[in-house]
Amino acid sequence: MTLQTLEDVGELAQQLRVDSIRCSTAAGSGHPTSSMSAADVMAALLARHLRYDWQQADNPANDHLIFSKGHASPLLYSMFKAAGVISDDELMTTYRRFGSVLEGHPTPVLPWVDVATGSLGQGLPDGVGVALAGRYLDELPYRVWVLCGDSEMAEGSMWEALDKAAYYRLGNLTAIVDVNRLGQRGPTELGWDLESYAKRVEGFGCRAVPIDGHDMEEIDKALSSAADASQPTVILARTRKGRGFSEVEDREGWHGRPLPAEMAERAIVELGGQRDLVAGGPRPGDGTPRVWPSGQVSLPRYELGAKVATRLAFGQALAAVGARGNVVALDGEVGNSTHAEEFAKAYPERYFEMYIAEQQLVAAAVGMSVRGYVPFAATFAAFFTRAYDFIRMAAISQANIRLCGSHAGVEIGADGPSQMALEDLAMMRAVHGSTVLYPSDAVSTAQLVREMADRSGIVYMRTTRGAYPVLYGPDETFPIGGSKVVRSSPADQVTLAGAGVTLHNCLAAAELLGRDGIHARVLDLYSIKPIDTDALLEAAAATGDRLVVAEDHYPQGGIGEAVLEALNDAGRPARVAHLAVRGLPGSGTPAELMDAAGISASHVVQAARDLIAA
Amino acid sequence: MTLQTLEDVGELAQQLRVDSIRCSTAAGSGHPTSSMSAADVMAALLARHLRYDWQQADNPANDHLIFSKGHASPLLYSMFKAAGVISDDELMTTYRRFGSVLEGHPTPVLPWVDVATGSLGQGLPDGVGVALAGRYLDELPYRVWVLCGDSEMAEGSMWEALDKAAYYRLGNLTAIVDVNRLGQRGPTELGWDLESYAKRVEGFGCRAVPIDGHDMEEIDKALSSAADASQPTVILARTRKGRGFSEVEDREGWHGRPLPAEMAERAIVELGGQRDLVAGGPRPGDGTPRVWPSGQVSLPRYELGAKVATRLAFGQALAAVGARGNVVALDGEVGNSTHAEEFAKAYPERYFEMYIAEQQLVAAAVGMSVRGYVPFAATFAAFFTRAYDFIRMAAISQANIRLCGSHAGVEIGADGPSQMALEDLAMMRAVHGSTVLYPSDAVSTAQLVREMADRSGIVYMRTTRGAYPVLYGPDETFPIGGSKVVRSSPADQVTLAGAGVTLHNCLAAAELLGRDGIHARVLDLYSIKPIDTDALLEAAAATGDRLVVAEDHYPQGGIGEAVLEALNDAGRPARVAHLAVRGLPGSGTPAELMDAAGISASHVVQAARDLIAA
Repeated sequence: MTLQTLEDVGELAQQLRVDSIRCSTAAGSGHPTSSMSAADVMAALLARHLRYDWQQADNPANDHLIFSKGHASPLLYSMFKAAGVISDDELMTTYRRFGSVLEGHPTPVLPWVDVATGSLGQGLPDGVGVALAGRYLDELPYRVWVLCGDSEMAEGSMWEALDKAAYYRLGNLTAIVDVNRLGQRGPTELGWDLESYAKRVEGFGCRAVPIDGHDMEEIDKALSSAADASQPTVILARTRKGRGFSEVEDREGWHGRPLPAEMAERAIVELGGQRDLVAGGPRPGDGTPRVWPSGQVSLPRYELGAKVATRLAFGQALAAVGARGNVVALDGEVGNSTHAEEFAKAYPERYFEMYIAEQQLVAAAVGMSVRGYVPFAATFAAFFTRAYDFIRMAAISQANIRLCGSHAGVEIGADGPSQMALEDLAMMRAVHGSTVLYPSDAVSTAQLVREMADRSGIVYMRTTRGAYPVLYGPDETFPIGGSKVVRSSPADQVTLAGAGVTLHNCLAAAELLGRDGIHARVLDLYSIKPIDTDALLEAAAATGDRLVVAEDHYPQGGIGEAVLEALNDAGRPARVAHLAVRGLPGSGTPAELMDAAGISASHVVQAARDLIAA
Repeated sequence: MTLQTLEDVGELAQQLRVDSIRCSTAAGSGHPTSSMSAADVMAALLARHLRYDWQQADNPANDHLIFSKGHASPLLYSMFKAAGVISDDELMTTYRRFGSVLEGHPTPVLPWVDVATGSLGQGLPDGVGVALAGRYLDELPYRVWVLCGDSEMAEGSMWEALDKAAYYRLGNLTAIVDVNRLGQRGPTELGWDLESYAKRVEGFGCRAVPIDGHDMEEIDKALSSAADASQPTVILARTRKGRGFSEVEDREGWHGRPLPAEMAERAIVELGGQRDLVAGGPRPGDGTPRVWPSGQVSLPRYELGAKVATRLAFGQALAAVGARGNVVALDGEVGNSTHAEEFAKAYPERYFEMYIAEQQLVAAAVGMSVRGYVPFAATFAAFFTRAYDFIRMAAISQANIRLCGSHAGVEIGADGPSQMALEDLAMMRAVHGSTVLYPSDAVSTAQLVREMADRSGIVYMRTTRGAYPVLYGPDETFPIGGSKVVRSSPADQVTLAGAGVTLHNCLAAAELLGRDGIHARVLDLYSIKPIDTDALLEAAAATGDRLVVAEDHYPQGGIGEAVLEALNDAGRPARVAHLAVRGLPGSGTPAELMDAAGISASHVVQAARDLIAA
């Protein structure tokens, strides 16, 4: 049914409140009062503005609804019940229970949920990504509606999002801020000061629409106005937490607490009892996404021995992979360093400059992944630490995004430690379902960039600043999860394993050892996660369990520990001489810094000698 | 000397430009053009407004100068030369060289540098921390001056900083934004649109002072006005990148590039040649920091077997440690969950609510550490991922900060994966010089909180949501780097090692195994970094090299890999049965989720049996 009058919509709002209370009380946990404040706005959105085909969640013309305040999941799931896609029984008996798709905070195990939320300040940035896709890639008129909490407006990421939304003129994006003035432990910074919120929003180039969030006419008008906006709209809805139940309304101490059963009963009575309205709302328009032409991917070719930085090879390969029309690229205003600019030159319409805002950089990639694109986002490897919460949440969102971090390790030289990624491998390995790649030469980099495009989950590539020799012929393949034996002989006494720049140090070390008659096998661990356990076992067996691992990374969580974990899991623990960066580096040349860190060829030589002598 | 006229100051500005060019050209790298745009403002600040005792960098009354745009280090170091604290020779021959204190981006290896910068968007948040200390802790009238880049205004963290600066009425803070309109790879988002910057700044509650950043009278007036402000001041200085050398001024393509030698010569001629002015500037006022009374620390006591959540014990111990007047606490608006509120109740004047802004939360702690305070910052462990770049940089800043992350792992239950820290141990272990603690009971938590207060570097404690039995008597001690054998017998066949909630699972497993006559040693690894290698070796030796490690964390970079690394480093690799969270969890009860993840007592039992049978 379509609710005809605003009075009907008010009834729907009461139903959403009642169901939010019922399901959280039944679960024994959850956030009913944070749901009740936003129920009026969400009822109006659902019944009259959200153009959504509930029978076909993957209809490309559907609007998008994101709960940036993910803790209001009772409200969202109550909307799903009202839309007729989950039953009252499912809501009451499975919410927050083990194995349920109605998790404590929304995740895309549900077809109507785009992204996981619950870490505040992320739903809006993700929504910017979806809106970018709508306007610039799909070229479809769907709208993106994001329900935000007022507390999360303290997160800088919300302002990165509004900044980019305005910059890219995302008139298809509407943020609704549920200004209920109460955070988890008390009043918010700005309380009900809508004027201050409006000044900020307008300062960032968006339309601010302050309303009484419980006045259905004001709500309806505000939501209508958003439809025709040329700039992003931010509806600032003044609301009362726990609205509709006098015992909790606008009172402190009720955040994240379900009502005890007998209070819930009184609340339901005060709210007019249980209802079972079904609210279809408007249908999406017709329309199919723009199809971007695709061509054959022709990877760049490199001459054996030529010195090419892997970051350059990344950029050139990315441009090559861009022949596939669904590939998009984003960068954090360092595209001339990461070489993502190679893609920008080839496909400017599918390149998005996110300026120095790494959180929004990753979130935009997540939003584009929601719409099925194949995003690559690049910045300095060190600066992905800025977006770790977003990367972690992207994994929960089941997003398929590719990240490339350049300028890794002490190898970068004179710029010093602020620019050196020395924790990124640990950080990225620990992400659920992630893939971590670290090529040593241009050929493997290019091949792996193509692999990345087809890989699901969070896929990370680490590239190197300096130019090092091409090691592989153009027809070598580099499957994810594999490795390469770069040098070996039947007489190998020790294995030298590296990745990225340290592989070159291992090769130099093998050369030096060879002069003294010591045969060393050199292993290129270009795939850090998954790692090539078989190759490690084989190398260990072939070289008397003597392994040197050298990495341009702190010792914790990087390549060395990945090797130890792999050998342990395979039931064959071996002694590993683990060379890693153990002090705090400063400035210097790459050679000086690698030597000081103990990861240069001479240190690899010494470690190999020590293992052989032991 | 004190420069008498604004014309003299203009001469100083030219000197700063010339020296910025000279030192970066000599080094062969660096950012001269980013230095030249801000030289006029910095010359005026140095000569007429920065109240600084250059002979006594630790004078508590000194103003603070932070280069948030750390890449302008040539300008900063040229100011140090002008202040007479480094020689021209040192600047020319050591800048960016190996072993030099004049690193590519500023670090506090120099006494006049408070914090490391170079990851953009951090200097201003750090400055907010110093200004908070000045106004609310030291109660001294020093001012905090922060030179910001315009590109970094795209970072959300800058707006977290201005928001908090206004909220806390930090009239002692002045941000100077060098609006030179050119970022690394081209024009910035807002270019020279000072009006838009001003609207944003004013929207966030700060004073905006737009000026021509090359007009010495406007500069001087703006800096003077900041002295008497009751709110934070943001000077928006319209400048030209590379100002003063016509071949590069306001031109693209000159970011992060030193001038080639012959261009540098022409530039120096155009800038009026080399100078050697010394600019003392005003002296700081007198004054000593407020001394906060200190008393005896009397830790809370807990009864053996009582069920107490470690997060509650953290809060209670923090309140106890607050008897020391230099201890301060901060929280990200979840103090009733982390229990930092216990400190707030006891010492409200030394408690700082940072609302939901984790980057600023950590940065404020860093700023307070600059002034010698002992900050503890708390939020959910998962949400410290939001601030990873700040934590990484805090290590380079040699800050002494203590972080407590609550609600770790799947143990949190129904709230679901967005709230579950499952990467935090990997993230925190990889931080340079960090300490990582994970106590299992209230007594060890309380003891370790006291240890944290005396520990330098980045010290992290992970606490658990649920209440578990107190395991230790009140007089046990828990040195950092130690461990506890909680259960053992001479007949132990296997070691079960855990920390936090999994220690309780290990104890339950030992009990179950004991019923079948299998003796198990249980090891409490409350110190994850440094880890107790001796105890691991001893346990391995005593129990036939049979070790089970169970952790409520993803397998990568956590306790299991820490154990493998420790055993490997000690030259005694052993097979470890590594139980960790390998799937993506959902909602459920703690028991259901730990069982599904394979880290519950029954899984520990099975792993032990498998090891014994092997």
